[in-house]
Amino acid sequence: MRKIRIYSLALVALLLARALSAQNKIVVFQSDFGLKDGAVSAMKGVANGVSTDLRLYDLTHEIPAYNIWEAAFRLEQTVPYWPVGTVFVSVVDPGVGTSRKSVVLKTRKGHFLVTPDNGTLTLIAASEGIAEVREIDEAVNRRKGSGKSYTFHGRDVYAYTGARLASGAITFDQVGPLLPATVVKLPFQQAVREGKTLRGNIPILDIQYGNVWTNIGAALLEELRPQFGDMLEVTFYHRQQQVATIQAPYSETFGAVAEGKPLAYLNSLMQLSFALNMGNFAEAYHIGSGSDWSVAVTLLPRQN
Amino acid sequence: MRKIRIYSLALVALLLARALSAQNKIVVFQSDFGLKDGAVSAMKGVANGVSTDLRLYDLTHEIPAYNIWEAAFRLEQTVPYWPVGTVFVSVVDPGVGTSRKSVVLKTRKGHFLVTPDNGTLTLIAASEGIAEVREIDEAVNRRKGSGKSYTFHGRDVYAYTGARLASGAITFDQVGPLLPATVVKLPFQQAVREGKTLRGNIPILDIQYGNVWTNIGAALLEELRPQFGDMLEVTFYHRQQQVATIQAPYSETFGAVAEGKPLAYLNSLMQLSFALNMGNFAEAYHIGSGSDWSVAVTLLPRQN
Amino acid sequence: MRKIRIYSLALVALLLARALSAQNKIVVFQSDFGLKDGAVSAMKGVANGVSTDLRLYDLTHEIPAYNIWEAAFRLEQTVPYWPVGTVFVSVVDPGVGTSRKSVVLKTRKGHFLVTPDNGTLTLIAASEGIAEVREIDEAVNRRKGSGKSYTFHGRDVYAYTGARLASGAITFDQVGPLLPATVVKLPFQQAVREGKTLRGNIPILDIQYGNVWTNIGAALLEELRPQFGDMLEVTFYHRQQQVATIQAPYSETFGAVAEGKPLAYLNSLMQLSFALNMGNFAEAYHIGSGSDWSVAVTLLPRQN
Repeated sequence: MRKIRIYSLALVALLLARALSAQNKIVVFQSDFGLKDGAVSAMKGVANGVSTDLRLYDLTHEIPAYNIWEAAFRLEQTVPYWPVGTVFVSVVDPGVGTSRKSVVLKTRKGHFLVTPDNGTLTLIAASEGIAEVREIDEAVNRRKGSGKSYTFHGRDVYAYTGARLASGAITFDQVGPLLPATVVKLPFQQAVREGKTLRGNIPILDIQYGNVWTNIGAALLEELRPQFGDMLEVTFYHRQQQVATIQAPYSETFGAVAEGKPLAYLNSLMQLSFALNMGNFAEAYHIGSGSDWSVAVTLLPRQN
Repeated sequence: MRKIRIYSLALVALLLARALSAQNKIVVFQSDFGLKDGAVSAMKGVANGVSTDLRLYDLTHEIPAYNIWEAAFRLEQTVPYWPVGTVFVSVVDPGVGTSRKSVVLKTRKGHFLVTPDNGTLTLIAASEGIAEVREIDEAVNRRKGSGKSYTFHGRDVYAYTGARLASGAITFDQVGPLLPATVVKLPFQQAVREGKTLRGNIPILDIQYGNVWTNIGAALLEELRPQFGDMLEVTFYHRQQQVATIQAPYSETFGAVAEGKPLAYLNSLMQLSFALNMGNFAEAYHIGSGSDWSVAVTLLPRQN
Repeated sequence: MRKIRIYSLALVALLLARALSAQNKIVVFQSDFGLKDGAVSAMKGVANGVSTDLRLYDLTHEIPAYNIWEAAFRLEQTVPYWPVGTVFVSVVDPGVGTSRKSVVLKTRKGHFLVTPDNGTLTLIAASEGIAEVREIDEAVNRRKGSGKSYTFHGRDVYAYTGARLASGAITFDQVGPLLPATVVKLPFQQAVREGKTLRGNIPILDIQYGNVWTNIGAALLEELRPQFGDMLEVTFYHRQQQVATIQAPYSETFGAVAEGKPLAYLNSLMQLSFALNMGNFAEAYHIGSGSDWSVAVTLLPRQN
């Protein structure tokens, strides 16, 4: 009797562990397809052909065409908020038809990412860690009857494989052969402190509002010991050329400065960012984003 | 035996009543985030973290940045078409981090609205009536581990609370303390008749087509006793300045006038509106929308 | 005993056949409404009012206003990738309120299309074949209480009927009376070979990337016997006026040509298309799409 209970407990524990690391029937799609044609819908149709029991969601389909960096950034920004076991299908694939590998990354946290291995995984692999990388075996994980169509891997390979994985039609092992636990990485400027100056890059703009985000995290900023209300001086560079220099108070809320005035703040990713209260900072100062853009930040002396 | 039947009937009635007023596992999101970054997806990820059993939909995420009026209008326009029990999460929140309250409104009809109380509820509270307003108790209804991130309430408080409410993880009472049964209201021009003239405002443009909508409802228009084919004369004002005056037949269908010609009609909300058949009325006559815009409408004498 | 087995098998076969041709609780919406207002959401609210058990997806809502041709093209491009039994609701309806019929087409493959019969079904009816066309009986298949609202059939008739059909609330027979097995067709240029020249039209641009698609399929192209690397000469016409002439190699991958260079390829629909590697072909050569646009394609002599 007691033995049975122990076995039962062990079984429950096993099932629980399995459930926590296993696929959860959710697929989240990202691409540079836009929403004006039927491409995204065709991917979801194929996924429903695998199983109508899936929950299909979107990250974004407005990644600028061919912009692998931004695809990488959006994944890093969003994946952590989804439950473990969620399968992401990201298709920004300028090299479709070339030798880039089609892979599924399982992160240490237990998210799955189905994508061409072209740099898309740069940031999420670093932030979540790599558990395993497998190459998609197209001999089995490719939509039936799609052999002739070589330009829409998003639909025929990635959506199909993602749906099979999420639905449990295949296990992660059945994706295909194990690859070395590494991914193709895009070069990017790391955030550093040089004496009293913080340097970093501008990975992305918060385009809806025109806010400028940097990769300088809260912990690094903390090394300057800023308090709310202290002034930061920030210089923005494009390819080492100075574009603008502004002063902005480090602020807890947008309402801490008058309408139209600049402020520095921590964004929802806890990274140093710049905005105009009720305005468009990036437009006002002609700031862009990407690996060519960088910032230098210093703390101005407090005036008592 | 008979008693049992009566008990059963009572139970069924009780369950039915409960079902009709209870949450239905549907969450509908609205924001000014746009669809180009991961913000909307992060909200849905958090909701799935609460329960993967929810049905997540969108109203729109293209509310112009900070435009609380338009958020209010879209809710009034759309909420009534969703089943009772649906939970709406609306995040247009220029005052994030200030003292505006985070609330859940339960309407008399039984819809739930999770939002900052900044005017977003102006129109839906008036049209559906207020059953109860509760302030979100962030001590319990806030995503675990999000304490440090103060700029994305949409994800950490509103999406999280909305998902908990919709999934039944909390009851409406468990949202937080009851507030007075009122909401923050934006001023706006009511529709009125002054003798033979109807006055009203232009709450919104039907932007996809360039049609101009007013807040003059079918009942008020009826007081002029127009028949299809009768001519209406309409003057459009921006801050009391006359922008354009046109004549348009009151029409049952767009096809009632030639291509490119103006018509007056009742839109899908049964409110007086103006359009060009197969054209863009707002663009042609430079008409905008919002509280600054108004119209004056008279019925021209019928010519037999 | 044996008899029972045979009966069981027959029953299983029957159920399977029924399942394969029956509705599958999936509704896919298409319109020219855009995503900036609440129109699409209202349609989904109405569908959820019919049954909260449905899976609601989108094809696109960015069909250019009133562009029936593009609605037809998107359906042809996308419907085949969805499981048999899926219900499509397509609302591009410039003739709302006129005498165009509201219909449901069941294709021979088993997809259902709910739409005004205004040309929207031109291409899908040709490619999938017509099983039956039924006129929607608005006496029963119209949202309760919507009688007065005559301008939003998308919500009150099409979404409502599509949801009822998909959920099994009505059978296909209960949509309304059977019509002749034909649909309203838009004129369009067929793809043909005239000696050594292929002629066809440009049904659509792959706008996200600026690629130019034609209706010249792989089989017709094959009649010229091109090999990868062979040069094609293509002339683009708008209303018979020559707009541009270019030479481009027939290529298996975009990477087969240098960045910014033109190539000819088969798109994901296996139709002849033109692109610039990492560039925007349509913009560079001022190419548009629609029934006014055509191409003439010849194969240049191979140079050894």
